[in-house]
Amino acid sequence: MTETSDDLEATLAHVWATLAYGVEDSAAPARTLALATVGLDGGAEARMVILRSFCAEDATLAIHTDNASHKVGEILLQARGTLLHWDPETKLQIRLRTTLSTREGTAEEWARVPGTSQLAYGGTPPPGRPISAPDAAGRTADPARFAVIDARITEVETLWLRNNGHRRARFQRNAGFTGVWLAP
Amino acid sequence: MTETSDDLEATLAHVWATLAYGVEDSAAPARTLALATVGLDGGAEARMVILRSFCAEDATLAIHTDNASHKVGEILLQARGTLLHWDPETKLQIRLRTTLSTREGTAEEWARVPGTSQLAYGGTPPPGRPISAPDAAGRTADPARFAVIDARITEVETLWLRNNGHRRARFQRNAGFTGVWLAP
Repeated sequence: MTETSDDLEATLAHVWATLAYGVEDSAAPARTLALATVGLDGGAEARMVILRSFCAEDATLAIHTDNASHKVGEILLQARGTLLHWDPETKLQIRLRTTLSTREGTAEEWARVPGTSQLAYGGTPPPGRPISAPDAAGRTADPARFAVIDARITEVETLWLRNNGHRRARFQRNAGFTGVWLAP
Repeated sequence: MTETSDDLEATLAHVWATLAYGVEDSAAPARTLALATVGLDGGAEARMVILRSFCAEDATLAIHTDNASHKVGEILLQARGTLLHWDPETKLQIRLRTTLSTREGTAEEWARVPGTSQLAYGGTPPPGRPISAPDAAGRTADPARFAVIDARITEVETLWLRNNGHRRARFQRNAGFTGVWLAP
C-alpha cells in the first residue's frame, strides 16, 4: 500500500481533513495557525490566529479579528499572506498561500462568539497601542469592532519529514489543486 | 508576588530562557520557530525553521539553510522578517522582529552538523523545484550549499493569554530592550 506521504491525492485530502478538524475541535493541532502578512514597514509580520471556519469545496477559510488590529491595515495594503501549520506529531508542515480580505462580521457570526470571547473585540486603546500598566486596557465587547478575515487558498504546499527522505508537494488552485512533487 | 506575566523584566528573561532552551534541547518547544519573510511576488511567506544558536547578550540567533532555497533570495531583497513561537502549554506567544542576513556556513559549523542532517544541504534539483516522483530528488551533502541565516532581533513582542486579561508587551533594541505594556 502506498503511504499517504507518497500519494498526492491522499496528501491533499489529509490537509483538508486537518483543517476541518481544526474548526471542529478546539483542542485540534490546526485550531491555531501562524498568519504571515507584510507589515506597514515592508517587512514580514507573523502571529498566531484561530481557525474559525473552513470550506474544502471552495478552499477558503476564515479567522476573526478586532478591526482595529494592525493586521487589518496590513491586509488592505498587501492581500497575499501565508497561513502555516506544523504538527510535531505527524511531522507535517502545511503552508497555505492565500489571498486575504477583511469585512465586518455578520450579526449571525457575532452571535456565535461566546460572551467572554466577545471581549476580544473592542478594547481601549486598540490592540498593540502602549498602555501604562499590564492590565490598563479597557475591555468592552463592541460588535462594530468584530471583523472577519476571509482567506482564499491559492496554493497548498506540504512538507512531510521522513527518515527515508522528506516529501514535498504543491497544489495550485489554478490547476484545480492537482499536485506536483517538489524537491524537499 | 508579582506574576511573571505582570513583570516586564521577568517576561523578557522568560523569552531569552525559552530561546536558550530551544538551542540546548532538541525536544524543547522553541526548537522550531515559524520564519516569516516577504516573498519574491511581494506577499508574505512562512515556514518552520530550527533554532541553531542564540546569544541573549547580543540578541541574535542563527538558523541553517540550503543556500539554494527560496528564502535566501527573499532575505536578500527584504531583510526584515519575523520569527514566531507559540507555546500551547504556557499560552505565551513570542514574536521576534529581526534583521536577517545570510552567509556561507563556516567549516566549524559544518562539522557540527550530524552526517545524516548534512544531506539537507545539496539536493538535486534545489529545494522547491518540481520533480517527477516523490523520491526523485538526489541527496548529496554539499558543504558549498550550507548557509547560515543570522537574525538580529530588533524587537521582541510577547502576548500571554490569561483568563483574567491577556498581557502584551514590547521590547525594542533601540531602547535597550526595556519593555512597554501594550493593549492586548
